[in-house]
Amino acid sequence: MFENHALVVRAGRIQDLLPEALAIQRYPDAERQHLPTHALLPGLVNAHTHAAMALLRGIGTDQPLDRWLRQFIWPLEKRWMDRDFVMEGSRLAIAEMLLSGTTCFNDMYFFPDATIETAQDMGIRLVAGLPVIGFPTRWAETPVDYLRRGLELRDRYAHDPQIRFALAPHAVYSVDEATLKLLSTLASELDLPVHMHLHETQTEVAESMRTQGMSPIAYLDRLGLLNARLIAVHLTAVSPQEIERLATTGAAAVHCPESNLKLGSGISPVAELRRAGIRVALGTDGAASNDDLDLLGEMKTAALVAKGFSGDPTALPAGDLIRMATLEGARVLGLDSEIGSLETGKSADFIAIDLSGPATTPCHDPIVQIVYAATRSQVSHVWVAGRPKVAWGRLVPDRLADIIRAARGWEGRLSRSGAEDKTAEGSA
Amino acid sequence: MFENHALVVRAGRIQDLLPEALAIQRYPDAERQHLPTHALLPGLVNAHTHAAMALLRGIGTDQPLDRWLRQFIWPLEKRWMDRDFVMEGSRLAIAEMLLSGTTCFNDMYFFPDATIETAQDMGIRLVAGLPVIGFPTRWAETPVDYLRRGLELRDRYAHDPQIRFALAPHAVYSVDEATLKLLSTLASELDLPVHMHLHETQTEVAESMRTQGMSPIAYLDRLGLLNARLIAVHLTAVSPQEIERLATTGAAAVHCPESNLKLGSGISPVAELRRAGIRVALGTDGAASNDDLDLLGEMKTAALVAKGFSGDPTALPAGDLIRMATLEGARVLGLDSEIGSLETGKSADFIAIDLSGPATTPCHDPIVQIVYAATRSQVSHVWVAGRPKVAWGRLVPDRLADIIRAARGWEGRLSRSGAEDKTAEGSA
Repeated sequence: MFENHALVVRAGRIQDLLPEALAIQRYPDAERQHLPTHALLPGLVNAHTHAAMALLRGIGTDQPLDRWLRQFIWPLEKRWMDRDFVMEGSRLAIAEMLLSGTTCFNDMYFFPDATIETAQDMGIRLVAGLPVIGFPTRWAETPVDYLRRGLELRDRYAHDPQIRFALAPHAVYSVDEATLKLLSTLASELDLPVHMHLHETQTEVAESMRTQGMSPIAYLDRLGLLNARLIAVHLTAVSPQEIERLATTGAAAVHCPESNLKLGSGISPVAELRRAGIRVALGTDGAASNDDLDLLGEMKTAALVAKGFSGDPTALPAGDLIRMATLEGARVLGLDSEIGSLETGKSADFIAIDLSGPATTPCHDPIVQIVYAATRSQVSHVWVAGRPKVAWGRLVPDRLADIIRAARGWEGRLSRSGAEDKTAEGSA
Repeated sequence: MFENHALVVRAGRIQDLLPEALAIQRYPDAERQHLPTHALLPGLVNAHTHAAMALLRGIGTDQPLDRWLRQFIWPLEKRWMDRDFVMEGSRLAIAEMLLSGTTCFNDMYFFPDATIETAQDMGIRLVAGLPVIGFPTRWAETPVDYLRRGLELRDRYAHDPQIRFALAPHAVYSVDEATLKLLSTLASELDLPVHMHLHETQTEVAESMRTQGMSPIAYLDRLGLLNARLIAVHLTAVSPQEIERLATTGAAAVHCPESNLKLGSGISPVAELRRAGIRVALGTDGAASNDDLDLLGEMKTAALVAKGFSGDPTALPAGDLIRMATLEGARVLGLDSEIGSLETGKSADFIAIDLSGPATTPCHDPIVQIVYAATRSQVSHVWVAGRPKVAWGRLVPDRLADIIRAARGWEGRLSRSGAEDKTAEGSA
C-alpha cells in the first residue's frame, strides 16, 4: 500500500507508479486528476455473472433454488428472453457494475453476442461465456447448435482485446455426457476456460451420486474436465478429498456468497480452498439471486460469513478479500498478465474509492475500511484500459437515465407475467 | 404497502396518510415535497450501539472478541476516552446514522451526557444507556458511582421527549452480583429498561457455568432481571429451553449479525426467537466491530445469514427485516406508541429511500429491493418529529465537513497509540 502516490497512464497502460511529488517532476506535461481522499485499486473482477438477468432482479426472493428456477426464473426466461432482453439487461448490469467499480466480468448467459456488443459499446472488459445447455432456447436448439453459435462469436469478435471467451456448460445435471466430452476436447484444443456451476447445492451432489454413482467433481474428473482451465462456480459442498483433487488438477473456484446464502445453498469453504492453493475469485452471480452486482458488498459478506461459519475471526482477513476481487480474479480468468494489479505494463484498469465520508472516517486502515465500511456509492472513478468510464460517480458518457428508462419498461411486463407458466424450461 | 400516497405532517406528528391526489385536495395549502421514485419508511431504529466508538472504527479487525477488547479497544479507551472523545465520536456516529436512515438509537457508553447533548444538538432520538461496569473509568469509579451519575442525567434531561433512558450494565462477567441485584430493584421501581450484552459468545456462557454454576440467562433470571424490561443484546448461544424462558418472561432481544460474524462470536437464532414470540430488534453494535452504523446493510446481512445458517431460503423474509428495523425495534425499546410505523398520531419520524438507481431497477418488489439491493447512499431524506434532518442526501444543516475534520483529528492520535498498553481495562 502506497500513500500519496501517482499512477501514470499512457496509451491505455500503466506506465509508472511513484510518489506524487516525483510524478509532477517527471511527467510535468501529463494531464492530472487529483484525488486526495481516495484509494486507488485495480478494477474489480466479477468472476461469475448472468448479467442480463438484472432485469429479473429480486424475482422469487425467499424461495429455494429449485422452486426459484422452475416456478419463477425459467418460465419468465422462456416467455421473455430474446436478443432485446439480453441487450437491455446487459446494459443495465454493465452500468451497475461500472458504477460500483467492476471493470471485468465473466458472464454466462444466452445471446452472448448481445452482451458482447453491449460490453464493447460501454467499454467494460468481458469474458463471454459460450453457453451450452441440454434444452432449446431462442438462442439455440441442440448442444451442438449452442456450440456452433458460440464458437462463431469467438471468430467474429477475436480482434477485440477486451473480449475473451470461455466455454460455459451450465452444470452436470443440465448438459449430457457426450456434450461434456466434446467440450473437454474443444477446451483443450482451443485452449479455452470452462466456466461451469459445480457443487452448488448438496442436492446437486446427491443427485449425481444417484445417477452417476459419483460426485459432479469426480464425474468431471473422469471426463477430463478437471484441470487448470476449469472455473468451478459455487463449490458449497466439497469434501477434503475433493478439495485436494481440485488443488492437484489446478482447477479454479468462484465464490458467490450472497447468492449461496440467499438461496440457502450452503457456503463454500473458501479459507480451506485457498489454503489448499486453489485460486478463488469472487462473483455476485446474477442479480436475480443477490440482488445486486456489487463486489464491494460481496467482499464484506464473504469476510463476515467466513468468520461467522468457522467461528474464527482471523479467517479470510480484509487483504485477502481485496486480492480475491482483483488479482486472484484475474488469475482465475487467465488474465493476470493483463489486469488485476497496479503494475507497470499492465492495462490501466483501475478505480478510485472515496474514503472521506462518515462511514469510512476515521480511516485507521484503508484496506479494512474498504472491505467492511465502504459501499459502492463511494466508487467515484473507474478507468478501463486508461479510458474513463465513471467520473465523480457518474457514467462517462452519462447515459444512465436512458438505461434506467429502458429497464423500467421491462418491469411491468415481467412482474405481470410472473406465475403463468410453471412447467417450462430455461436456465439460470 | 401503498403506492402514490402522501404522508401529511403537522406539528411533528403524522396527521394523515392518503392517496396523493386526495391529499392535494384535502391539504391544498400544505408545503409539499414530491418524491416520485422513493419509498417512504418509518425511521430506522438501531437498537444497540456504542456510538462514540465510531472513532475506533475498524481497529483490531480480524481478531477474536477477547483479544480485540484486551489488546486494542480497552487500552485505547483507557488512554483516550473522555468527554471530548465521546462528544466527537457521538457526533460522527449520529451523522452517519442520520445519513443512512436511522432516526433512533439505543446507546451504551461512558459519558452519556455527551452523547445526549450531541443527540439533542443534531435532533436524533436517543435511548441513553446509563452505563454500569465493575471497574473505574474517567466517567465513574465504583458501580454505585456509575449509577448515581447515570440517574442524575435522567433527572437533568427528563424534559426532553426525544431522550429516554435505560440502565445499561455491561454484562454478567463485568458487573458484580450485588450491583445487578440493585439494578433489578431500580429498574422495577423506576420502570426503566435494562440494556445488557447477554450470551454474546459461548465463552461467556461457559465461564458463567464455571463461576455461577448456571448460564448468564439463568443467573439473570435468579436475580429478577429476566422480564419484559430486559433488552438482551446478541444471544448467539441459547438453548431451546432458554428461548422458551426468554419468551415466557417477555424479555426482548437485539440481533447484531455483522458484529457477531466479524468477531466469530456465532449467530443468533433469530427465526427461532421470533417464532417463540420474542421481540427482536436489529443493532449494528459499535463501529469498532462492524465497521459501520448502517441498518440497511445490517438488514441484508441478517436476511442472508438467517437463510445461509439454516439452509432454509424462506427463513426471515424481507418484510420481517424491515419490521425488525422499524416497529419491532420501537417495541423492544418501549417506544412503539410513539414511533416505528407510519400511523396517524405517531411522531413524524420517517425516511425516503430513492429506488431509481441501477441496483434497484427494475423494482419488482420494493420491500425486497430495499433489503437486498439498496445501500445507505439511497437514503435521500430523513425527518425526526417532522423536522428535516437529511435532504437530498445531505445533513440539515450540512455540518458534515466539520464533523469529518474533527474525527480525522483523532485518527493520528489513536492509530499511533495502538499497542502501547496491553494490560489496562476499559469497556466495549
